[in-house]
Amino acid sequence: MRYKAIIAYDGTNFHGFQRQVSGRTVQAELEKTLTKMNNGTFVEVQGSGRTDAGVHALGQVIHFDFPKERPLEKMRFALDTQSPADIACKSVEVVPDDFHVRYLVKEKTYQFKVDIGKPRSPFRRFYASYYPYPLDLAKIEAALPAFLGTHDFTSFCASGSSVEDKVRTIRVAKMAVNDAGDELTFTFTGDGFLYKMIRIMVGTLLKIGNGRLEADAIPAIIKAKDRNLAGPTAHPEGLYLVEVKYD
Amino acid sequence: MRYKAIIAYDGTNFHGFQRQVSGRTVQAELEKTLTKMNNGTFVEVQGSGRTDAGVHALGQVIHFDFPKERPLEKMRFALDTQSPADIACKSVEVVPDDFHVRYLVKEKTYQFKVDIGKPRSPFRRFYASYYPYPLDLAKIEAALPAFLGTHDFTSFCASGSSVEDKVRTIRVAKMAVNDAGDELTFTFTGDGFLYKMIRIMVGTLLKIGNGRLEADAIPAIIKAKDRNLAGPTAHPEGLYLVEVKYD
Repeated sequence: MRYKAIIAYDGTNFHGFQRQVSGRTVQAELEKTLTKMNNGTFVEVQGSGRTDAGVHALGQVIHFDFPKERPLEKMRFALDTQSPADIACKSVEVVPDDFHVRYLVKEKTYQFKVDIGKPRSPFRRFYASYYPYPLDLAKIEAALPAFLGTHDFTSFCASGSSVEDKVRTIRVAKMAVNDAGDELTFTFTGDGFLYKMIRIMVGTLLKIGNGRLEADAIPAIIKAKDRNLAGPTAHPEGLYLVEVKYD
Repeated sequence: MRYKAIIAYDGTNFHGFQRQVSGRTVQAELEKTLTKMNNGTFVEVQGSGRTDAGVHALGQVIHFDFPKERPLEKMRFALDTQSPADIACKSVEVVPDDFHVRYLVKEKTYQFKVDIGKPRSPFRRFYASYYPYPLDLAKIEAALPAFLGTHDFTSFCASGSSVEDKVRTIRVAKMAVNDAGDELTFTFTGDGFLYKMIRIMVGTLLKIGNGRLEADAIPAIIKAKDRNLAGPTAHPEGLYLVEVKYD
């Protein structure tokens, strides 16, 4: 029986989602929990995609096959409470045997938080990237729509990525400021994102806000398909995988 | 020259504010920073009051004497950036030599955060106390005003406290729910609070919300001057020292 689960995790103390030879990972911790729940027989976990070290998730989606049928809330509760405290299980449902959490993704939403307060908040040091330099938010607002639509995002993909097709469609690209005025939240929704794409997009937007790149620079950067023209890669601790949608 | 500074800290990795023989404390870290800034000559830090291990501060106030006059923003920046990342310095000002951060307190405000979501948020595990049981918030709202005014709070003071006068005046006692409906924030303002008083007040309010104590029970508990009649002490990770006011 195949189960799909929505998982949240604080990425601070993980070497990312994906199982590795060494280093604590979300996938390995979930497999440990499920294997224990399965009386020691290994249960493999598939995730909707990797997240890097320090990156968080509010709505990572996983699937796994579990031999016994169990009441869903019991399954959720066990997965939640028997996993370490930095992993939570928000929901569990039964899915068809041919459901696949990675191949069938329709849309993903990420958020990126930037602490722009002075001083940096001790409470956000693992949960937002800190940007202590002047920012013209109007310039960022003006630049954001250039990411919308279908483009080859080679310029916003970390070099060394092995993905061949770098065309992606972005449906939502927006920014919000909290009431206190000391935290920005970027939200991006698209059919998929390349390796470090959100972090490079945010790094580029901050460079625009700081006046070191023109607000209308993004279309030309996209067109050039050259990673060197985009801004720096923003830090992982600001990034959250918020939601993964399926048909 | 005497300086007053407003300090924020994430209490998770501290054995409280006050310097101890062993264990990392906020006071000792600040003294280390200031002593370094003072070329190795010890600078003593006084706080407005202690906070326990795991308790946070958004607005702890300290004073210290520093021999050299320095531009205030330079002082703030040095104290902020040379202290560990879980301590921030929000502001620094010069005060008269007879200013004392503990003796002259007029009013203190604390907040207490309770994660009532299901599951517990991994992001709040060090920043809110978790309460997974049913809560009737209307009962808590009904009970809160009983704390207002001037009372002998012996019933809400941890046993073993050496303070003789347990009369305190509370001016604000309120509760708010966040938009998502999964976090409560209690706010208490008063001329002072006894040892663990806020945490016992919150523990009592949660017991009322859970139906294991009547909503109108608080006046009789106050009157009895008996710690055993109040609820349990809520966990330290939910507590924040928010503001300290002086004349």
